[in-house]
Amino acid sequence: MTPGPTVKELAGRALTGDERALGRLISRVESEPSTMSEIAPLLATRARQAQIIGFTGSAGVGKSTVIAGLIRRFREQRCRVAVVAVDPSSPFTGGALLGDRIRMQAHVLDPDVFIRSMSARGHLGGLASRTPDVVDLLARCGFDVVLIETVGIGQSEVEIAAYADTVVIICTADSGDAVQAAKAGVLEIGDVFVVNKADRPGSAEVAADLREMLMLGDRAGTFDANVLEVSAQSQTGMEELVTEIARHERWLSTDGELERRRLRRAETRLRACIADVAVAAVMGYDTGEALRRAALALASGTRDVLELARELLGASLSNEPPPKPERSTTI
Amino acid sequence: MTPGPTVKELAGRALTGDERALGRLISRVESEPSTMSEIAPLLATRARQAQIIGFTGSAGVGKSTVIAGLIRRFREQRCRVAVVAVDPSSPFTGGALLGDRIRMQAHVLDPDVFIRSMSARGHLGGLASRTPDVVDLLARCGFDVVLIETVGIGQSEVEIAAYADTVVIICTADSGDAVQAAKAGVLEIGDVFVVNKADRPGSAEVAADLREMLMLGDRAGTFDANVLEVSAQSQTGMEELVTEIARHERWLSTDGELERRRLRRAETRLRACIADVAVAAVMGYDTGEALRRAALALASGTRDVLELARELLGASLSNEPPPKPERSTTI
Repeated sequence: MTPGPTVKELAGRALTGDERALGRLISRVESEPSTMSEIAPLLATRARQAQIIGFTGSAGVGKSTVIAGLIRRFREQRCRVAVVAVDPSSPFTGGALLGDRIRMQAHVLDPDVFIRSMSARGHLGGLASRTPDVVDLLARCGFDVVLIETVGIGQSEVEIAAYADTVVIICTADSGDAVQAAKAGVLEIGDVFVVNKADRPGSAEVAADLREMLMLGDRAGTFDANVLEVSAQSQTGMEELVTEIARHERWLSTDGELERRRLRRAETRLRACIADVAVAAVMGYDTGEALRRAALALASGTRDVLELARELLGASLSNEPPPKPERSTTI
Repeated sequence: MTPGPTVKELAGRALTGDERALGRLISRVESEPSTMSEIAPLLATRARQAQIIGFTGSAGVGKSTVIAGLIRRFREQRCRVAVVAVDPSSPFTGGALLGDRIRMQAHVLDPDVFIRSMSARGHLGGLASRTPDVVDLLARCGFDVVLIETVGIGQSEVEIAAYADTVVIICTADSGDAVQAAKAGVLEIGDVFVVNKADRPGSAEVAADLREMLMLGDRAGTFDANVLEVSAQSQTGMEELVTEIARHERWLSTDGELERRRLRRAETRLRACIADVAVAAVMGYDTGEALRRAALALASGTRDVLELARELLGASLSNEPPPKPERSTTI
């Protein structure tokens, strides 16, 4: 068997529009922790030219119908489109995304639409997810638009959608999500708000509620967000949605707002990754025995948690011999 | 002004039953990160003799009425009781706990009932909370029972309740919490389930649903939990609740289950604290400038997140001079 292409070779091809190489490269990014650090210098030679739009909303709000409608419009404008569907980790919403995928079938055979699903969890679990790397990669590979789709309006879905430059929150009159959204801090993070299935009773009220919450919220100095009533099924309000997304893109390009936003998000991501790296280092240190011994000292009350945490972290990162807290018999 | 007592002096007095010293000691634990490491060796000389019971449930389920009823019963048995009411960080439920406190007024003047509220957040924010230290302290200060009260059934409330040996989940027919509880992973963590206000319509159905979910859930090898229908207001079912809590306490004392549980929780707490310590170290390193520079390198795509996280963490813990990732102009 001949050796496969290196990640650098795959990256070189992906950057010039080879979607097969791109697909293989993404798989390597997902499975090999070192891939991004190998190809980062190469990727950085290409500007991130794509508009990155994130979509979030509970299962059943018609998210994928909205996205399918947008893809069609972007394709009419001759844009190359990439879609990243992030599989939520919760078993309760896992099915929804699969159903959604079926609705995108119309675009699967279009060579200028690249669709990829990926797990929300990374090598180290949780926030060390490779989703933002894949989004960044796509944004440098000649796509004009990168769409990120997530299910749910909880904190973790919000974090995933926040890898985007423009975040579209979708709800319906039925979903009762307006209040949930306010609680989960979604209002602060949304740029465009869509009440889908707007022909259903109560839609105008939900839209009015959202508008009021947006006015009351602390959005001073930020984008003056609108709430759109849309019926993606019957294509009503879709033009307005395209226009609103474009308006947000224009707003971002003023006053260095896009750079500020990307920098803030990079810092948040870095902090989460630092936490993951620290825990992984300690869990692997002395094959986990040091952590177990420290937990025993904590449980027996002989040592303080902060002191133990500092000690373990320092030792595991400097490869010192593991500390041996005296063993106590009473927990 | 004469200097106040040292934390060791306060701890010595608190361990012999001085509640004023105990109150001052808790304040020091909350405000001074080093307090627990100073007094841990002294505390470890005393066994943790108290039964630690955690209560969780949404606002309005009558949690504090249940707790007040239990306190009365424990006092009839001449037990010394401590209550830790953990203030949730969310502004949405903040008011509920204050209302609850009023219901405990009956016990405020009883010298054998110690009531203390504390924030769910620690010095480093989040899970480096000092709540488990305070619970541990109380368990060594001559109390027979320590009750932990939290509001809500979200993940963070579950974590707080899990500092207890026995976790009591309280809901009502109205609260619709049964499904929420299943989603939030509460069923796995509960030991005793209470459907309060059991005279309301639908209570028997909610109890039956919970029993079914418990049977379907993966609780093999764990405590065979019951669902109790209680009306704390009219004192119906309270004796059964006391009996059930005692049954769980007996179960814990068999086969080293209590030690296993405390060890598992100590490890979870330690991991969370390690993450907090790591992030705090990096954020403080080079007065935050190193983190900002790294975020810029990440946002511009020149460096990988994992590589940057490892570098920053290693440097900030070993006090190396800060790394200088080359500055890029495009984000």
